[in-house]
Amino acid sequence: MLLFLPYMLIPESLENLIYELAKLPGIGPKSAKRMAFHLLSQPNNETLALSSAIVHAKEHIRFCERCFNYSEEPLCPICSNSKRDQSVICIIEKHSDLYAFESSGGFKGVYHVLGNNISPLDGIGPDDIHVPELLQRLEGVTEVILAMSSNADGEATAHFIDRAIGDRPISRTRLARGIPMGSELEYIDSMTILKALEARTIL
Amino acid sequence: MLLFLPYMLIPESLENLIYELAKLPGIGPKSAKRMAFHLLSQPNNETLALSSAIVHAKEHIRFCERCFNYSEEPLCPICSNSKRDQSVICIIEKHSDLYAFESSGGFKGVYHVLGNNISPLDGIGPDDIHVPELLQRLEGVTEVILAMSSNADGEATAHFIDRAIGDRPISRTRLARGIPMGSELEYIDSMTILKALEARTIL
Repeated sequence: MLLFLPYMLIPESLENLIYELAKLPGIGPKSAKRMAFHLLSQPNNETLALSSAIVHAKEHIRFCERCFNYSEEPLCPICSNSKRDQSVICIIEKHSDLYAFESSGGFKGVYHVLGNNISPLDGIGPDDIHVPELLQRLEGVTEVILAMSSNADGEATAHFIDRAIGDRPISRTRLARGIPMGSELEYIDSMTILKALEARTIL
Repeated sequence: MLLFLPYMLIPESLENLIYELAKLPGIGPKSAKRMAFHLLSQPNNETLALSSAIVHAKEHIRFCERCFNYSEEPLCPICSNSKRDQSVICIIEKHSDLYAFESSGGFKGVYHVLGNNISPLDGIGPDDIHVPELLQRLEGVTEVILAMSSNADGEATAHFIDRAIGDRPISRTRLARGIPMGSELEYIDSMTILKALEARTIL
């Protein structure tokens, strides 16, 4: 399948393993080959631990009924945590964004994971990104943070959600644009510099 | 387990999947997380294709009885190929070395995969690297190529095998040392330059 070796030289089940590993994000044929050799060289229980972890995760993890975070229970640990402020919803595109926010430790509200941005070219409309479910949980909410990526699809999604929330008395905020911490100015793109200049703060 | 997120925030089966993926060579916690999210986002059959490829490969791949290459049959495709010259054995350390040789397309003999180098510090002795099996297949062999890595363990292994073959009428060769194709001289280490100078050839 990968055709990097003469036909029939590599056992079919090994070739298939390499092929499946190479589908993982960021993994090319060379890394996949290295991973496959590693898996074959490990004791049976070590190797099978990976395959059963995959099966187990796929079987047990579902979406939180409220925010669409990954969860093993109907409600995820964040939604069911009484210490989290349920009146502030941070709307994000992907699950990895949620973990990035949580790692910062600076957000005490709850999330709503869209799973995607609106993208007419890819056939992704408002109903595909859990907007109806968002509108149903706005009771008692005072602020939504529109934390989509700052690209065309992200901007369009933020704009759409803003309009969908309509004239409900809910403030809408977005993340500050500016220079990332620890960055050298010379390597920052000019659009970011412009935004950082416009939004400059008093010392 | 990886402790990169507050306890209990990430579902246990997801954390376990990330943990198992991070054991793969060259994969750190960040890549493992990315891979886990990817696996969860794929349709069931796509994700389970990977886990069954692992199980299937682990179940069906064994060592070739003669050369210890990976194989689904008692003899690997190279050992059982009548067009390969069984009188020349290329002795290599790892399975990936075999595929590197085969990709070059320049070797028509057969292999003997040691699986390791002799390394007294790691408790790896001659019996652990299939040397007895090598000595049993030397009937009719005219040349062995000692193609171990050029480090201390590789040199020691080559030396040991040379002595184990003893006074049998078999020539022992090793790979040429020199400048890799397409390399800039300024980036080559001085030991390689020295070897390349010593072994210079007439134009």
